[in-house]
Amino acid sequence: MDDIQDRLSENELASFFHDLADAAGRIAVTHFRSNIDFERKPDLSPVTIADRAIEQELRRLISKRFPEHGILGEETGSTPGDRYTWYLDPIDGTKSFISGMPLFGTLIALADERNGAVIAGMIDMPALAERWYGTPSGTTFNDAPARVSRAVNLEEAQIYTSSPDFFSPEDWARYDALSRKAMFRRFGGDCYQYGLLASGHCDLVVECSLKSFDFMALVPVIEGAGGVICDWEGLPLTRHSDGRVIAAANAALLQQALAILQQ
Amino acid sequence: MDDIQDRLSENELASFFHDLADAAGRIAVTHFRSNIDFERKPDLSPVTIADRAIEQELRRLISKRFPEHGILGEETGSTPGDRYTWYLDPIDGTKSFISGMPLFGTLIALADERNGAVIAGMIDMPALAERWYGTPSGTTFNDAPARVSRAVNLEEAQIYTSSPDFFSPEDWARYDALSRKAMFRRFGGDCYQYGLLASGHCDLVVECSLKSFDFMALVPVIEGAGGVICDWEGLPLTRHSDGRVIAAANAALLQQALAILQQ
Repeated sequence: MDDIQDRLSENELASFFHDLADAAGRIAVTHFRSNIDFERKPDLSPVTIADRAIEQELRRLISKRFPEHGILGEETGSTPGDRYTWYLDPIDGTKSFISGMPLFGTLIALADERNGAVIAGMIDMPALAERWYGTPSGTTFNDAPARVSRAVNLEEAQIYTSSPDFFSPEDWARYDALSRKAMFRRFGGDCYQYGLLASGHCDLVVECSLKSFDFMALVPVIEGAGGVICDWEGLPLTRHSDGRVIAAANAALLQQALAILQQ
Repeated sequence: MDDIQDRLSENELASFFHDLADAAGRIAVTHFRSNIDFERKPDLSPVTIADRAIEQELRRLISKRFPEHGILGEETGSTPGDRYTWYLDPIDGTKSFISGMPLFGTLIALADERNGAVIAGMIDMPALAERWYGTPSGTTFNDAPARVSRAVNLEEAQIYTSSPDFFSPEDWARYDALSRKAMFRRFGGDCYQYGLLASGHCDLVVECSLKSFDFMALVPVIEGAGGVICDWEGLPLTRHSDGRVIAAANAALLQQALAILQQ
């Protein structure tokens, strides 16, 4: 039960994350735009053989290197482990993936369940060759430092969400009120939106219905780039969060947004 | 007033379109993710110096080659000409462009105003290095033939629209009813959605509030790939159409969709 930081350097951990994303991306691009079939999961969301093959390969690589770690993946559920858990979303944005839209990504996070801290997270966009990697030391975009924007007023903020379809009517009313006060709003993006925020291109992302494997990787990417991310109550995200997520370029913007979401 | 087809070959016309898109793309990628400023137009839509610089350059190149042709551009309005008109949208998806999202494109169309036929159209996505070029002879995607999907039932169709914000409440109710019968719906895409349809990745695109420079280029791209595109009444698109546009992989899918949109 040693600290993982005592066992490997930051560079070694980063290198392993990049290896994982490289392996995932090779599988994803092989199947992308290949007229791939899909099935419906019980929640009606689609899943393809690519989702499953990527998760299987990531599990194989992680288990080989860290056999004592737990793994929670979108497609295969939870494998219990010691104090560390890997959160995997093999293809975030499967609808994009199926419809030939390159805005799908692989999400990888490593968390210390003793204190809930996410040690490192990655958003990899294989069809775009864009990759964010975040730790408490900082966030990189394609290996260069990433930094959030300086927008501090809601009226100058660009706000993103994936789809109105992920909101309950009540939550949609709150998001609608918030986003109409922003400079402009745009739809569609899944995990990519958080990368755009980490790189300072947009200023707010608000979503609902996310699962732990959807949002754990976002935390160090956003925070390492200087931004803030939490649930709609303003509480830190944990694996037990209710899936309502807000990310902002800074605390001032977050407070303005939360004030509206909580009305 | 000779036929343009008598003056230059299909290859020469294609080559000129590619030159135009290359010139536009060079300007676009220079400004993309450069923290570019924007202004609001009277309709509150954003415009940047990149939109204006691209339109100016396209107008210069067209006027040099075809001084007798008319030009209708999003940013600079209408320049009268003879029987031929170029329709230009320098940056379709300016919100994407401003927020670092690579889903913006340049739209170029050449129409014969004598009969309303669109002779050729191009959707160029400079940040993605993806380009569709359509004529009555066929549509290419990055120089290879593009072909629509074979989905003939609404229940198996993937449907796209850019944003609920472009619909009136009445039209949104119609779109909502339609898209809930499809296999799944996704938001956000602007002109890129029509490229995805031409390449068989999605099956239906339905939008409102498009201007002639938004949709004229789509017509030969969709039709050249074997698809159909028209207004919500099922009528061919002309420069005077009301901006409600539907594109489908085939007539069977179109009829099912129109039946719902017209309820």
